[in-house]
Amino acid sequence: MNQWENALSDLDEVASFLELPQDQTVILKSPRRILCVSLPVRMDNWSIEVFEGFRVQHSLDRGPAKGGLRYHPGVTIDEMKALAMLMTWKCAVVKIPYGGAKGGVICEPDNMSSSELERLTRRYTSEVGIILGPEKDIPAPDVNTNPQIMAWIMDTYSVNAGYSVPEVVTGKPTEIGGSEGRFDATARGVISTIEEACRVTGTTLEGSTVAIQGAGNVGGNVAKLATDKGARVVAISDVRGGIYNPKGLNLWAVAARTMKTGSVCGTPDCRDITNEELLTLDVDILVPAALGGTITMDNVESVKARIVAEAANAPVTPEAERESFSSAVPS
Amino acid sequence: MNQWENALSDLDEVASFLELPQDQTVILKSPRRILCVSLPVRMDNWSIEVFEGFRVQHSLDRGPAKGGLRYHPGVTIDEMKALAMLMTWKCAVVKIPYGGAKGGVICEPDNMSSSELERLTRRYTSEVGIILGPEKDIPAPDVNTNPQIMAWIMDTYSVNAGYSVPEVVTGKPTEIGGSEGRFDATARGVISTIEEACRVTGTTLEGSTVAIQGAGNVGGNVAKLATDKGARVVAISDVRGGIYNPKGLNLWAVAARTMKTGSVCGTPDCRDITNEELLTLDVDILVPAALGGTITMDNVESVKARIVAEAANAPVTPEAERESFSSAVPS
Amino acid sequence: MNQWENALSDLDEVASFLELPQDQTVILKSPRRILCVSLPVRMDNWSIEVFEGFRVQHSLDRGPAKGGLRYHPGVTIDEMKALAMLMTWKCAVVKIPYGGAKGGVICEPDNMSSSELERLTRRYTSEVGIILGPEKDIPAPDVNTNPQIMAWIMDTYSVNAGYSVPEVVTGKPTEIGGSEGRFDATARGVISTIEEACRVTGTTLEGSTVAIQGAGNVGGNVAKLATDKGARVVAISDVRGGIYNPKGLNLWAVAARTMKTGSVCGTPDCRDITNEELLTLDVDILVPAALGGTITMDNVESVKARIVAEAANAPVTPEAERESFSSAVPS
Amino acid sequence: MNQWENALSDLDEVASFLELPQDQTVILKSPRRILCVSLPVRMDNWSIEVFEGFRVQHSLDRGPAKGGLRYHPGVTIDEMKALAMLMTWKCAVVKIPYGGAKGGVICEPDNMSSSELERLTRRYTSEVGIILGPEKDIPAPDVNTNPQIMAWIMDTYSVNAGYSVPEVVTGKPTEIGGSEGRFDATARGVISTIEEACRVTGTTLEGSTVAIQGAGNVGGNVAKLATDKGARVVAISDVRGGIYNPKGLNLWAVAARTMKTGSVCGTPDCRDITNEELLTLDVDILVPAALGGTITMDNVESVKARIVAEAANAPVTPEAERESFSSAVPS
Amino acid sequence: MNQWENALSDLDEVASFLELPQDQTVILKSPRRILCVSLPVRMDNWSIEVFEGFRVQHSLDRGPAKGGLRYHPGVTIDEMKALAMLMTWKCAVVKIPYGGAKGGVICEPDNMSSSELERLTRRYTSEVGIILGPEKDIPAPDVNTNPQIMAWIMDTYSVNAGYSVPEVVTGKPTEIGGSEGRFDATARGVISTIEEACRVTGTTLEGSTVAIQGAGNVGGNVAKLATDKGARVVAISDVRGGIYNPKGLNLWAVAARTMKTGSVCGTPDCRDITNEELLTLDVDILVPAALGGTITMDNVESVKARIVAEAANAPVTPEAERESFSSAVPS
Amino acid sequence: MNQWENALSDLDEVASFLELPQDQTVILKSPRRILCVSLPVRMDNWSIEVFEGFRVQHSLDRGPAKGGLRYHPGVTIDEMKALAMLMTWKCAVVKIPYGGAKGGVICEPDNMSSSELERLTRRYTSEVGIILGPEKDIPAPDVNTNPQIMAWIMDTYSVNAGYSVPEVVTGKPTEIGGSEGRFDATARGVISTIEEACRVTGTTLEGSTVAIQGAGNVGGNVAKLATDKGARVVAISDVRGGIYNPKGLNLWAVAARTMKTGSVCGTPDCRDITNEELLTLDVDILVPAALGGTITMDNVESVKARIVAEAANAPVTPEAERESFSSAVPS
Repeated sequence: MNQWENALSDLDEVASFLELPQDQTVILKSPRRILCVSLPVRMDNWSIEVFEGFRVQHSLDRGPAKGGLRYHPGVTIDEMKALAMLMTWKCAVVKIPYGGAKGGVICEPDNMSSSELERLTRRYTSEVGIILGPEKDIPAPDVNTNPQIMAWIMDTYSVNAGYSVPEVVTGKPTEIGGSEGRFDATARGVISTIEEACRVTGTTLEGSTVAIQGAGNVGGNVAKLATDKGARVVAISDVRGGIYNPKGLNLWAVAARTMKTGSVCGTPDCRDITNEELLTLDVDILVPAALGGTITMDNVESVKARIVAEAANAPVTPEAERESFSSAVPS
Repeated sequence: MNQWENALSDLDEVASFLELPQDQTVILKSPRRILCVSLPVRMDNWSIEVFEGFRVQHSLDRGPAKGGLRYHPGVTIDEMKALAMLMTWKCAVVKIPYGGAKGGVICEPDNMSSSELERLTRRYTSEVGIILGPEKDIPAPDVNTNPQIMAWIMDTYSVNAGYSVPEVVTGKPTEIGGSEGRFDATARGVISTIEEACRVTGTTLEGSTVAIQGAGNVGGNVAKLATDKGARVVAISDVRGGIYNPKGLNLWAVAARTMKTGSVCGTPDCRDITNEELLTLDVDILVPAALGGTITMDNVESVKARIVAEAANAPVTPEAERESFSSAVPS
Repeated sequence: MNQWENALSDLDEVASFLELPQDQTVILKSPRRILCVSLPVRMDNWSIEVFEGFRVQHSLDRGPAKGGLRYHPGVTIDEMKALAMLMTWKCAVVKIPYGGAKGGVICEPDNMSSSELERLTRRYTSEVGIILGPEKDIPAPDVNTNPQIMAWIMDTYSVNAGYSVPEVVTGKPTEIGGSEGRFDATARGVISTIEEACRVTGTTLEGSTVAIQGAGNVGGNVAKLATDKGARVVAISDVRGGIYNPKGLNLWAVAARTMKTGSVCGTPDCRDITNEELLTLDVDILVPAALGGTITMDNVESVKARIVAEAANAPVTPEAERESFSSAVPS
Repeated sequence: MNQWENALSDLDEVASFLELPQDQTVILKSPRRILCVSLPVRMDNWSIEVFEGFRVQHSLDRGPAKGGLRYHPGVTIDEMKALAMLMTWKCAVVKIPYGGAKGGVICEPDNMSSSELERLTRRYTSEVGIILGPEKDIPAPDVNTNPQIMAWIMDTYSVNAGYSVPEVVTGKPTEIGGSEGRFDATARGVISTIEEACRVTGTTLEGSTVAIQGAGNVGGNVAKLATDKGARVVAISDVRGGIYNPKGLNLWAVAARTMKTGSVCGTPDCRDITNEELLTLDVDILVPAALGGTITMDNVESVKARIVAEAANAPVTPEAERESFSSAVPS
Repeated sequence: MNQWENALSDLDEVASFLELPQDQTVILKSPRRILCVSLPVRMDNWSIEVFEGFRVQHSLDRGPAKGGLRYHPGVTIDEMKALAMLMTWKCAVVKIPYGGAKGGVICEPDNMSSSELERLTRRYTSEVGIILGPEKDIPAPDVNTNPQIMAWIMDTYSVNAGYSVPEVVTGKPTEIGGSEGRFDATARGVISTIEEACRVTGTTLEGSTVAIQGAGNVGGNVAKLATDKGARVVAISDVRGGIYNPKGLNLWAVAARTMKTGSVCGTPDCRDITNEELLTLDVDILVPAALGGTITMDNVESVKARIVAEAANAPVTPEAERESFSSAVPS
Repeated sequence: MNQWENALSDLDEVASFLELPQDQTVILKSPRRILCVSLPVRMDNWSIEVFEGFRVQHSLDRGPAKGGLRYHPGVTIDEMKALAMLMTWKCAVVKIPYGGAKGGVICEPDNMSSSELERLTRRYTSEVGIILGPEKDIPAPDVNTNPQIMAWIMDTYSVNAGYSVPEVVTGKPTEIGGSEGRFDATARGVISTIEEACRVTGTTLEGSTVAIQGAGNVGGNVAKLATDKGARVVAISDVRGGIYNPKGLNLWAVAARTMKTGSVCGTPDCRDITNEELLTLDVDILVPAALGGTITMDNVESVKARIVAEAANAPVTPEAERESFSSAVPS
């Protein structure tokens, strides 16, 4: 089953659970609009290459569509359709007045110069622009696209409009109106979720002990923010392994070590541990922020944390989730 | 090979013949824009059905795109792409300042009421309207669509524009601005072609003898127009068979017979012949206006007509065409 | 019965004659759109006066609406509605692709300065402009409006559009794109009608004798054009009376006399006659181009002309028309 | 005098009181724009009926016009003009940056199916849309129109705009952006007014006793909100009569009784009283929220409440108001 | 060096200080767009005069351009270019998302009637309107233009847009949406600056003594606002001289005196002083709010105030500023 | 006096001759609109250069403005203003419904690559596009601009419009809609003028003898067209000198010689002459199609041709023109 079939089957499951009328389900299953465009781009060697680009708008019913734009050789219409549909659900469940969209261009950005990427992006915007706009569809960075690419989109769109339209994209550079805090937004979302979980379980983040698997953009910022909130981060890890200090880590020292050696391992005053050990530490809160599927039926019983904050994509397998859920919830 | 692959391969052949630079070929191979839309339509039984609709614009470089809109269960994107590309070539070779497009909706119009077709057409127009318009793309009737459907498109588009825009479609009813002569346009095209062939071969349509395979919209009107031009139509046929009178047919009698019996066969003063016999009559001009592939390597030698006017889709097989061409052309 | 009720009753009569379906009649009876606006205008004495203005569009189905704009203290919505409906019929019977409209402002133009009229006209255009335009509704001069007023409308509309839009009004000065020949257009229409009548009756305008009641814009130009076509104009009249010369009038002499005395009476070489006498002259063609109702049951029997060209508004009463028609038509 | 003449005469009175210059008064007396449209609607029995619709914009000077849309057989232009003018005053006195408008369609909604109402509403929106919009004129529900009708207006307008324009109407369903709290907005306005009156008279709503004539949308919600604020609601009534309990009513019991019997009368622990008695109860605050003209010169002397909050349309006659005012205000 | 050359040289100095890349400097040096228009205006004596108008937009990169419109016989393009560039810097340094613009008309407003100014302003707006708008360029009052002129601009622009667009100008009358507090905005800016300086120097405005040179819009309002904040204003002056009362001035008395005599001099309970004496008073805060260049190398040593708030244009010469700065800053 | 002052003084002279009212003269003297733009262009060496561009519209009163676009280092606003004004006169005297405009960019196209010129042209179009368009202003090639540059303008403008707008420029390549015959349009104009002169002087071009100074685009094509019309071209020249054959030149031989040697001199069967000699040949028609000022008071007496067709810019000095005119015209 490809992504689109998966998405449709998820929708069916939910629709039947909600007893949605057939009329509504059949509409929700159909992306409102798909625009496929050919993008002739002059390459640096003066040849012309023609790229295929897409923009799928799944729903505009709750407001302008919202969704990322990705540059990848493996982009397919079905993937775009699935991701656009997920954007509709995402916006709806958090009650943001937006619909769902997704865009993509089949290309290999690693092999393209910055000039080529600019020409590709401007052409894409020019062609897809008829269905973009602050009231219609607002792209955002996604796989292989970034604030610079958003700036090109904004500029191309603005030249056409005749004045600056920063509201046509999100994720643009802060200098031209991008939102601050975007870089640690995921981490802050994790913290908010943890705080809510603490509220439900009758504890507080302040004073809790925290172990974090992963020290990248998410894990690193969760460590910083949790410390700021008064939690005691006792363990963190990266691909090479982790470190543990039950009295709490000195994040400056961790950062310095990482800067120097490329890994947290060996930070002074800490004991080195494995990634697997980290998951089973006796802490209040465990944050798996690295790979998916790290907590499985094999190790779920060993997890001692009362709160597991899933900061990676699906770090807990469905089976393990059911297991841990059934044991965690008071009967 | 599907239609799109065929079209691409034809393009490659021509491009190599013309020694088109690769840069231009690669652009010509890519349809400029494909818009796919979901069309929720309330059916007469009050259920909602969602139809898939398309509009492919292959090229807008020579002017607004032009191309039909078809309603058929077998509509596919690849077919649309191929037909849109052919429209580009068609307009270009006759130097009309238009590009090429094609549209379609996957539906079974035979099973739909007029109200359902109206709602479907209006919804389609509403969704696809962003890329239609007198300067952008001008639909026309095609398989299973007709002047009434064009009128619905025009009305929907006009309501949106705020005033009547008859120029947004061709093939609309003459009462609201449709061109006169559309119903026998194909036949007149055939006549023009014959006249040109006569000019080249040093004969005239006036006074020539003509045999016509097929008595439908094309064949019937060719018979009428050729007679008006002073030719002697000596044979015509339909699926049941044909009739022959070397002195020329009385078209009124033929029409009366058809009206009464549903076939030309048995028209007074005529001899009944088979469709196969008709092809080999000793006439100046033969018009195969029924099925494709009727003149093959098997019977091409028996064709006596000096001019064969192909009024059906490919009535002469490529092999037979080569054969007859080599024998017909003076060395 | 006011004008609107009259118009509706005429429509009913025709609709029943044509056996129009009720659905269509009920739509034709309803003006599509009426826009009433308040027009505050600064008068030359610096007070503000607020005028009421209207634009009625009866039908836009056959193309943009077309109709005059009148300035008169007696303007009413019902009159506007009736006249707009008549414009729809007028355009349709001569197969011009226009619908029908009419506009008016309640004012007394005789008491207004040119500046006040300009400010009123510009304000009217500004307010009504949302429904005007070359594809929507195209005003023309009517009672108390003239090319100058059309020029103000065009200028106001053009300033708003950002470029010159001469096609938004007809009847503008020729210097800015007005059609030539507008000043004698009615007379030429009369001549065309006479020529057609001659054709039907087997005579020719050339060589016919003509008597014309009225020497204004219509009568005067008919005299000139008929003479140009080779007819012999033997009599013409104005409110003071008429002149007659069976050998044909010298139009230069008539014009000179009028210039000097204000009347055609007393032109040398002519016999003075009364307006009543003129109607009964023994001529081929009689053109009543002055008042309505001049040919009645009382004098219809004395009219000797074979062709009566009605160039005034209803110069022949309906009864007289029936009478003369029954006698004139060969049984 | 009809409503429009009334409104003009009120304006004259106020203008003379304010010594408004004549120039301004004459403009304020003229509605800026009236658009009358014919609305052909296909009825469920497939006949076409043509409805007359209106939109009057009295003033756009302070911002976009604002005003309800009503469906009623008795709709007249003069009523629309009067109500539009009142909307201008309403918005201006509370300093909301809006002008005044009103719309209506002559129809009998009780006899129309939901489909017919939808088609009528969409057609009305389509025709009147040229003068609607977030910056131009924003309709709202009024007599016989409701959130569903506002949703149809919003959808029709949005389809035309090409994206969702929820800001084109107020009073739409909350699911598509309607404001929460609309259903008890009037009651909350009454409470705010009472609180302000309390402030002026040096008392507080909290702890005051309240009698309410009327138990509908206004009276019922005033009862609930006043209780929430700590007031003691001692009496309430409906058309059948009222109830009284000096210790305060149990609103749950009142609601239960109403649900069961259709009237508040007979609620346990309460004494039944007449509507007339209610007005003269010894309470701090009296809220006449039923009919107009209930407090007259006949009973004004018996009213004991220090604060009379007029929640119906003009429940106190002008004479009684003067009387009560003169007695209430400290000399 | 004219103003434009000055502005360019300032830019060069800053660019070299910031080590701006040449690419960026060269763009910053070029005004994006200059529109020069001819404005034929009918004068009150019915002649036509043609005025020259300008609008320079230096930069639109950070948002819509912002800048005043001035009416002056000495307006030049170079001045406009310089002032537009300064507006870009002004908006950027206080991080307002606006670019910079400036407009002007060469005229002598003192010799023009209000009607002539209105016609000039409306024509200017009409011609320049293509580059104005809330998202493009937003004028404001400047030399010889005022809220009335902004209202004319707003009205002309709005008539064209079809609805009220108050956001197209700032500085319009508060009745139609102008911001409150504009009249004393400069004074409040001075007070804010003083408060910030107090914070830095460890004192407070409350309780400080203040001397103000100048009693116009700036000086007068500074006096009032400083007093409101608890400061003791001990001296103020106008062109005729100043007054001094070490216990603090009674502003009502000062205002009354000014009203009566046209000068602050001679206010009861105060000692008259010269403008020069005022600068050297022993106060905490000195506010030169009259002419430029009043504090020079000659008198800078005598200034005793710890805080000098420059409320006039450059009241302290650069040399004096360096001198006072070096002595004021703690080493 | 610069070009603008010259143009103004010419206008004054004509206006006084025509007794134009002052009101109209003062308006005609003022260019309606001047737009100056800064054009940052990335050069091939990756630096940014900022070019200054202009578009002057002198008058839009008779229709959209029309005028060339030139690229030259010496472009000035005053030159643009003068040339735009001349375009107004040119269009008006030949009654074409266009106004006058002119555009320019200060640059040295000889030193720029094709890519740089494309980027400059696209940027110019983008910036100036707000005042261009088929109804507003239609550029054409001029000094250093050509069909390719027009194609870039058309493409940039069309991308912005969303569809092909070939009518936005003239002088584009014929493949995308340019007019045929543009390359020899000037020559054909010369021929038409000669034919008209022949008509007036009672001769015919056919059979006349012709001498042509200059063999470039104008002179060469005049030779060809005159020969086609039956005239006998007896002499032609280029910068190196001329050739003469009283029996008429063989243009194929002349072309062959030029192709080979770069000059007409030495063509077989011809006598070589000087450019000066050519002017005094005994021919019917003399066409100075090279430099200005070749016929002066010094040689005008020696010119024997009865018709001198000025095909260069002012080849006859004003004095010589007066002289020759007075002698040529029959008294």
